Amino acid sequence: MLGELLNHFPDGIIRPIFPGVSVRRLSFLLCLVVFCCLLLATCARAQKAQHPLDALDTREYWTVYDVITASGHLGDDAHFESILLHEPTKSLVLAWKPGDAAPREADVVLVRKERVIEARVDLRAQKLESWKEVPGARGPVFDSEITGFTETILADDRVKKALAKRGITDTNIVQCEAVPLGFLAFPEQKDRHIGMADCMIAHHSYHTWSRYIGGLTVEVDFASKKVLEVFDEEVVPIPPPSDYEEAPEVARPGTKPGVISQPLGPSFQIGNGEVSWQNWYFRFRLDSRVGPIMSLVRIDDHGRRRSVLYEGNVSEFFVPYMDATRNWSTRVFLDAGAFYPGGILKSLRQGLDCPASAAYFDGLSSDEKGNPVLRPRQACLFERFAGDVAWRKEDANLVSGRPSRTLVLRSAAVVGNYDYLMDWRFEQDGTIRVAVGATGILDARAVADESADGATNHANHSAEEYGQLVARNILGVNHDHFFSFRLDIDVDGQNNSFMIHRLVEKELSAGSPRKSIWVAKPSIAEKERDAMMDIRLDKPSMWIFVNPKVKGPLGHSTGYEIMPGVTAASLLSPDDGAQKVGAFSAHQLWVTPYRPEELYAAGTYPSSSTGEDSLAAWTRKNRGIENTDIVAWYTLGFHHVPREEDWPVMPVMWHDFVIRPFHFFGQNPVLNLPNEP
Amino acid sequence: MLGELLNHFPDGIIRPIFPGVSVRRLSFLLCLVVFCCLLLATCARAQKAQHPLDALDTREYWTVYDVITASGHLGDDAHFESILLHEPTKSLVLAWKPGDAAPREADVVLVRKERVIEARVDLRAQKLESWKEVPGARGPVFDSEITGFTETILADDRVKKALAKRGITDTNIVQCEAVPLGFLAFPEQKDRHIGMADCMIAHHSYHTWSRYIGGLTVEVDFASKKVLEVFDEEVVPIPPPSDYEEAPEVARPGTKPGVISQPLGPSFQIGNGEVSWQNWYFRFRLDSRVGPIMSLVRIDDHGRRRSVLYEGNVSEFFVPYMDATRNWSTRVFLDAGAFYPGGILKSLRQGLDCPASAAYFDGLSSDEKGNPVLRPRQACLFERFAGDVAWRKEDANLVSGRPSRTLVLRSAAVVGNYDYLMDWRFEQDGTIRVAVGATGILDARAVADESADGATNHANHSAEEYGQLVARNILGVNHDHFFSFRLDIDVDGQNNSFMIHRLVEKELSAGSPRKSIWVAKPSIAEKERDAMMDIRLDKPSMWIFVNPKVKGPLGHSTGYEIMPGVTAASLLSPDDGAQKVGAFSAHQLWVTPYRPEELYAAGTYPSSSTGEDSLAAWTRKNRGIENTDIVAWYTLGFHHVPREEDWPVMPVMWHDFVIRPFHFFGQNPVLNLPNEP
Repeated sequence: MLGELLNHFPDGIIRPIFPGVSVRRLSFLLCLVVFCCLLLATCARAQKAQHPLDALDTREYWTVYDVITASGHLGDDAHFESILLHEPTKSLVLAWKPGDAAPREADVVLVRKERVIEARVDLRAQKLESWKEVPGARGPVFDSEITGFTETILADDRVKKALAKRGITDTNIVQCEAVPLGFLAFPEQKDRHIGMADCMIAHHSYHTWSRYIGGLTVEVDFASKKVLEVFDEEVVPIPPPSDYEEAPEVARPGTKPGVISQPLGPSFQIGNGEVSWQNWYFRFRLDSRVGPIMSLVRIDDHGRRRSVLYEGNVSEFFVPYMDATRNWSTRVFLDAGAFYPGGILKSLRQGLDCPASAAYFDGLSSDEKGNPVLRPRQACLFERFAGDVAWRKEDANLVSGRPSRTLVLRSAAVVGNYDYLMDWRFEQDGTIRVAVGATGILDARAVADESADGATNHANHSAEEYGQLVARNILGVNHDHFFSFRLDIDVDGQNNSFMIHRLVEKELSAGSPRKSIWVAKPSIAEKERDAMMDIRLDKPSMWIFVNPKVKGPLGHSTGYEIMPGVTAASLLSPDDGAQKVGAFSAHQLWVTPYRPEELYAAGTYPSSSTGEDSLAAWTRKNRGIENTDIVAWYTLGFHHVPREEDWPVMPVMWHDFVIRPFHFFGQNPVLNLPNEP
Repeated sequence: MLGELLNHFPDGIIRPIFPGVSVRRLSFLLCLVVFCCLLLATCARAQKAQHPLDALDTREYWTVYDVITASGHLGDDAHFESILLHEPTKSLVLAWKPGDAAPREADVVLVRKERVIEARVDLRAQKLESWKEVPGARGPVFDSEITGFTETILADDRVKKALAKRGITDTNIVQCEAVPLGFLAFPEQKDRHIGMADCMIAHHSYHTWSRYIGGLTVEVDFASKKVLEVFDEEVVPIPPPSDYEEAPEVARPGTKPGVISQPLGPSFQIGNGEVSWQNWYFRFRLDSRVGPIMSLVRIDDHGRRRSVLYEGNVSEFFVPYMDATRNWSTRVFLDAGAFYPGGILKSLRQGLDCPASAAYFDGLSSDEKGNPVLRPRQACLFERFAGDVAWRKEDANLVSGRPSRTLVLRSAAVVGNYDYLMDWRFEQDGTIRVAVGATGILDARAVADESADGATNHANHSAEEYGQLVARNILGVNHDHFFSFRLDIDVDGQNNSFMIHRLVEKELSAGSPRKSIWVAKPSIAEKERDAMMDIRLDKPSMWIFVNPKVKGPLGHSTGYEIMPGVTAASLLSPDDGAQKVGAFSAHQLWVTPYRPEELYAAGTYPSSSTGEDSLAAWTRKNRGIENTDIVAWYTLGFHHVPREEDWPVMPVMWHDFVIRPFHFFGQNPVLNLPNEP
């Protein structure tokens, strides 16, 4: 309780206390600081006005628990999947002023006998507003459900026989994991919540990621907690352990220390949950389901706080594997929607994930009983100044320019084998760079092969049909990663239009010294279908969100542009069951009219679904998107053919995209940066 | 001479002296250091073995001068364009050992009466080896030639009349710049070296980039130094000055200092011109024409120094503008090949372009008389540690991972209005990231318009047909930037093959729960035409350079992959004169067999050319590229539709690509990094 008071403010984020100041100096002040903080925190708790978009705080989690249990609906057989903030309407949020009472509601998902129940709790009135079953929906699962099948599976005679066949008699070292199916793969899923389980050897290794018992798959039912079927197809060797946890006895030599310090502290400030840095102002909350949700992102322009983004967050991760073997053909993961219970974010490690000058933020989620769980360091915030340049020009031996720095909000989503570093990087010039760093461990299949047979051309080598050997007996299976970012862009207000500049070749007349140039043809997308954008190098286009009612000094509509980074489009056929759920991966950009209930690109309940509640489905209505409140959905994707260097743990692979001002500021907004970095 | 001895070693690069140590500490030691350095430098000069790929040193420039003047060929009317190292054959370089005498030759380009002469000088023998005219070639130009037309132009009666028409009577404040044509735009160019000149008002501004006298273009002849024709088409207002040189009186407040320090100095070392850092070993020289040339890039793998790249550098920049008006339709720049005399690199500014811990390197080029010019800080080398992560994995609340750092070699090429930051970034995991940051000033046209007329859709606004208004009376003209990187990749030796993994959809049989997956189909490119790669999201491919004779532990051929970043393909028609010269922009990757004379993607003399000596022309022979010494040519490109934020000086826009190990190391090579950043 003391720790909570010290660290955990009602908006669910921890205040940074003197980041950048050395631990030694702080040691003198520690007792005093503890006392002051206790006082301050208590005062803040008493006085602070809660913002309508603040994360649920600890008391609110308990209110949910108390209201639901008191309602009598719960019974013995229901468990909590998640408790999330139910956002107030946008108009209310935008009209809210400090001192106003913020309306507070929570959306609760519960599961009883595999039936999904949605409840809404009014937190101020401490009242259950609604309680309703969602027919046909499959709930997401907790990690404990995934690993909870081990005993049941190991008790099955067919499994026992399969293990014996492989010489495995000590079941103490066997772990099994049952993963719910990411799409409607089999007709029997309509009535049953089916999962596919693999078993691994937990022996001689700190983790079991490489230690698959190959050729053995167990079909289970999450509702009855029973084994349905056992597929014992091929006996292959258990791959050797491949650890990385323990540091080598002698680290690579020759690395001299690098010190980043901010003797006067960081340049950002946080007041009532709002971050301010350079000209930026924004809020964020750490959401159990999708991680950091940025909101009310505004930028100061000569004293005016101009709106850029009402809200931005990753809305779903779609990770289909590309292995047609029986055991693997259903491996399709919706990393957020199917696996978020307990919270998608895990703790960051100081000194590893963020530089020494970073401030850290705790976060809350809930467990199966509906009790809040406080997890430390779910995000960090730091200024990055590493020799970057805002602008420069050399002219007549005079070099003019300004060094630049970046504000980074970082968190780490951990979903099974993969770790995703998630960055929101704010530049001084009004640019936001959104980046995802994929690391962690490959999902790998045990195979008989110990080598790729030395063929330069692997085409005829069947072991590598679905991936690449990354170690002896280990096939790194080919797969995709697609992230759908929901970006509620509000340039200078809510009503925006989506302007496409298409770059098209223009042939010139015979009298010209040139045969051709290209020109940029602008158009405004009227309907959703006009705004399904595919990246083609032979047909390039620029994607600009403009406010048709607000003109800059030159008469241009003010705008913000989404500039794609390296990305990918899905290669799967539209009628593939996995692709139906992850259909957002078919285009790199989608634009929809704002609807408060359209939050997740693969739907609220993607598990075992057919994609009927998804970005692709909503946009079939082809709604109007001109001069109205619109939402952009950017798809960041990449195909992954594994390499030996990705084993036993992957070097971080970053991908990003950019949201940048386009005719927004009237001129270069960073002429007035300080000369010193 | 003293300064030269102190700073300038025979390989043309300056030794870093205690970077990261504060200036204050150094002040105590300065006299002592000066003395020691003098001694050391003298010793090093006497004893150091010159490497065959070292840049030409000061004495060698003077040897060239002495040999050429003594030859009697020079006469009064020839001037030097450039003096570049002529590289020894690759076999000789690879066989060279410290102590061997390095063969040293220089390639000299001279121009007499607009005829190009190539001379080669043997520097050891101090002997002229060859002297030959290159028929049909147009030489590149010095900045002084570009600006040297002002008096001639202002003396022309037609120009006087045009200026008078615009109310300009004081010609002291008029500057003109004549730019040679980047391609064969007019038949008369065959006999004449034609340029197009604009004039600007140098009044109330530190530069003239915005101050064009619109509607006035002057055609000049570089040979006769005469005005050929004057085009006076439209009188438009002179755009207002738009300065950035002077800092605002009050810089943006709220930026607290950030300090990067390396109290024990940097982790890299330089011995006899070779940089070593972490497991990397490489050399570089600063070339007048193309900037930094990386060479002999190798990486230590358990005690073996394995070859990655024999040589890598940008080979050409192609910048076509997209304005069909008479005055602008010939604006096509080959920034390296047409403008390098005097050296493409300009000085970096400490505290702006590189962080405080950086080491700087001087560089040499030559002037019109053939005299060496020593320019300070043409490159910097620094370690970047800014909160980056090499890899990480959270598992059961244990976060494993390692922080990472990067070694950056940075330089700045300045070509007219544009500044290009050029980075070679070496990662600890064997990845090389090559990046170009474009900044500087837009090439802008004076127009009558003061506003875009407030139209949301600019389609009908003729002023913006060829660009965007970026300020009152200033049109930022649409254009492209294409960079061709010549990458002589040598994976584990000289003979490599180019392997393409094509990702193709595979339909699955009716019995499968999935309808489709994708599989990676590998193939080896036999001939040049098989290796002209276009990026298509619907037909993705991976580009891997493998050594077919060297197998890793799993039997894979060892390889390095080129991973494209955001890039563009040219939209111009192949028969466009500009596109013929910059035809490398048609594909994102080309692969050729190694030929020592094929160095520049748009040819040795791109100015006024038709592209007959270019990457596109060489590859028409469709030569074999399998299991032989091959060279990759990567095209980094982007289209630029200017925005108001790009004026009066552009925020840096970075683009990059990656060269990374693929089945090269056998496993993740950064498990043994230190735990501290």
